[in-house]
Amino acid sequence: MADAPLRREVPSTPAVAPAERFAARTAGMTASEIRALFAVASRPEVVSLAGGMPNIAALPLDALSVEVADLVAREGQVALQYGSAQGVPALREQICEVMALEGIRAVPDDVVVTVGSQMALDLVTRIYCDPGDVVLAEGPSYVGALGSFAAYQARVVHVAMDSHGLVPELLRTALHTLAHQGIVPKFLYTIPNFHNPAGVTLAVERRAEVLEICARFGVAVVEDNPYGLLGFSGSAYPALRSMDRDVIYLGSFSKTFASGLRVGWALVPPAVRDRLVLAAESATLCPPSFNQMLVSRYLAGHDWRSQIKTYTEAYRDRRDAMLRALETYLPEGCSWNVPDGGFYVWLTVPEGVDTKAMLPRAVTARVAYASGTGFYADGFGSRQLRLSYCYPTPERITEGVRRLAAVLEAELDVMRTFGTPARLPATPPAVRDGPQAPSPHTP
Amino acid sequence: MADAPLRREVPSTPAVAPAERFAARTAGMTASEIRALFAVASRPEVVSLAGGMPNIAALPLDALSVEVADLVAREGQVALQYGSAQGVPALREQICEVMALEGIRAVPDDVVVTVGSQMALDLVTRIYCDPGDVVLAEGPSYVGALGSFAAYQARVVHVAMDSHGLVPELLRTALHTLAHQGIVPKFLYTIPNFHNPAGVTLAVERRAEVLEICARFGVAVVEDNPYGLLGFSGSAYPALRSMDRDVIYLGSFSKTFASGLRVGWALVPPAVRDRLVLAAESATLCPPSFNQMLVSRYLAGHDWRSQIKTYTEAYRDRRDAMLRALETYLPEGCSWNVPDGGFYVWLTVPEGVDTKAMLPRAVTARVAYASGTGFYADGFGSRQLRLSYCYPTPERITEGVRRLAAVLEAELDVMRTFGTPARLPATPPAVRDGPQAPSPHTP
Repeated sequence: MADAPLRREVPSTPAVAPAERFAARTAGMTASEIRALFAVASRPEVVSLAGGMPNIAALPLDALSVEVADLVAREGQVALQYGSAQGVPALREQICEVMALEGIRAVPDDVVVTVGSQMALDLVTRIYCDPGDVVLAEGPSYVGALGSFAAYQARVVHVAMDSHGLVPELLRTALHTLAHQGIVPKFLYTIPNFHNPAGVTLAVERRAEVLEICARFGVAVVEDNPYGLLGFSGSAYPALRSMDRDVIYLGSFSKTFASGLRVGWALVPPAVRDRLVLAAESATLCPPSFNQMLVSRYLAGHDWRSQIKTYTEAYRDRRDAMLRALETYLPEGCSWNVPDGGFYVWLTVPEGVDTKAMLPRAVTARVAYASGTGFYADGFGSRQLRLSYCYPTPERITEGVRRLAAVLEAELDVMRTFGTPARLPATPPAVRDGPQAPSPHTP
Repeated sequence: MADAPLRREVPSTPAVAPAERFAARTAGMTASEIRALFAVASRPEVVSLAGGMPNIAALPLDALSVEVADLVAREGQVALQYGSAQGVPALREQICEVMALEGIRAVPDDVVVTVGSQMALDLVTRIYCDPGDVVLAEGPSYVGALGSFAAYQARVVHVAMDSHGLVPELLRTALHTLAHQGIVPKFLYTIPNFHNPAGVTLAVERRAEVLEICARFGVAVVEDNPYGLLGFSGSAYPALRSMDRDVIYLGSFSKTFASGLRVGWALVPPAVRDRLVLAAESATLCPPSFNQMLVSRYLAGHDWRSQIKTYTEAYRDRRDAMLRALETYLPEGCSWNVPDGGFYVWLTVPEGVDTKAMLPRAVTARVAYASGTGFYADGFGSRQLRLSYCYPTPERITEGVRRLAAVLEAELDVMRTFGTPARLPATPPAVRDGPQAPSPHTP
């Protein structure tokens, strides 16, 4: 006791455990429901209709193997070295050619290559959003976008969709309501084509109107378009960016080539580009040269349009299998959209069923899906769920839907036996009737 | 005129150009002086002693070409697909083996793979720093770290080094001063080995003391160690993390293997890891599987320790060439450190010379360097500059230093002719005498 120190070195600072000193923004960083599912979904006995993993089985691996070997042997000194923060110039030129398929006229100077389009989305949020700022997003919206918005402490105001996508009148109403509170949202985040998770597409005749409304209110538009070339009709919709050069456009090779390379991009107006490049530099210094040069060689030397056609045909077969199974097996009172591209069907289940509460029982029955609440920032979506048809084979999809139907029947049985379940939060009509196209059960 | 609209749709919102509505943090995002130099440095007639590009000429491209071809042919379906946000498990195990060379005992569960260690640094800042928070960093410090700190609006307080690295007594003083203002910095950011840009190494006998001081004040320690295995003595220093399991350790394959793959990592305590993985997910979803699997195969199938030895021997030759040239050509009044590893010499020029103002004249004389102010958050460093010996050949290094010496002589000539230059901001002694080891001119 006599050895106790006579003076305290630190005058007034309590001993704080470092781990308790995180930034306020970490409060918004929660594991998404989808993420928790990845572990479950990887068990072979479970049919996962939950994930959004593209089906890359059709990739020409032998040809790619030769290509990548040549890249390392001939251009290894460049491919394995640091590159520019904005991305490899040759690839940025090719990206402009890819975007031309959707009517976009752009110059390579305005393209910023990123580590997947997720990084572009994260950095656009970084340069636009202060804590408390408002962004608009469709309801439901992409879970990865909601994650980035939360990471920068932006508030999300959802705008509902119908079977033709975002409803312009509801967008206008939302902006008026916010304007009366003195709020101008920083941007509208929208997935116009083959929406994730809703599966719907913004009607062409609505596109100019949406742009006009945003311009009038001084709100930027962020167009996220990973699925645009995966339409089942074979022709692409005109991008919002093709109608308005101020649109911030996000693209990706994850669905049209290979997700494991993590090559995406943003096409942005010059004033945004300069800031985006600086933000990218502090995020990763530069995207991997190696991956960019491999994508560039793939685009230059392979028939990538045919490859997209091959992908799309496989997805159409799977969509057809899913729609057939939904019609065959699902109980009365369900409704869903009929996607004409992309990966997803958005399903509304009978009133009283809570898709999040039901999920553990579904997994026990060896089928997984993504419950609806993960796609809303505000707690809605408990009667919805997302089904992905991109990864499993048609046979597995059929079996998965059959299992899901049995789980739903069991839920309804319990409800019939024990009466109405615990009261759920009310869902407003626009959300409740949401993005479903007329289903076979609700013609 | 009669057609003018009778009512205004938008009640009170001014038409705001989207580009003017950026987040407050963008004010801190400025192009670094180093970045502006990359364009200049790429001109073949200029000897660039400015960049930090590793010399990868010695990479066994033919063997790597075979390896990567096999990776795509045999494991393409995994390598080209999305992976986990935390990184490929096999690689995380191997990373633990790499870190064992510096005395670190760690489990793969605590490793998070990132797109270069820059991403780890950016995300650690993201989860720790609210706007206005203070971080400590050596003065001078890595320019990419200062960029990330600025992007999250953290304030940097520099702690000076001497020839044995960070000075514990000055660290203690800085923490006391801040504590009296009620400020506990979020973390100390330190590069203990072969510092960028100062070239010095934290003396082993200071390491425990630095950790003890930070623990006492409740300040986390972020150890950035990209150069740790590039010591010229052939043996590695014990990492701070090897002495304290709470240290956040950042590592990279950019200098020991290939920077163009952008594979780095963070080793963190579990409470930090969970948040870091969530942050990583919102930043890029996952790092590229392809690159991680290639690094994993390289570590498993190639003699990577010999490769590091090859790299290190080349860097030692280049360091020797630079030191010889500095001694031969530089005018009186210059001092510099003698690095025993890594890429950099930190040079102090005679009083009155402003390295930033001199840079355009140096480039005209066909030599480039990184001026000192870019490595400080507070405007110091105008009498310092960083010379990199990593990339040019010994002959080019010698020629570059000869050109630099001529530029310095010309500056001194002008000063002698026209008297003292415009008054420069005063530099405090600890910074002025900074991290230089005794040079041949100041024995």
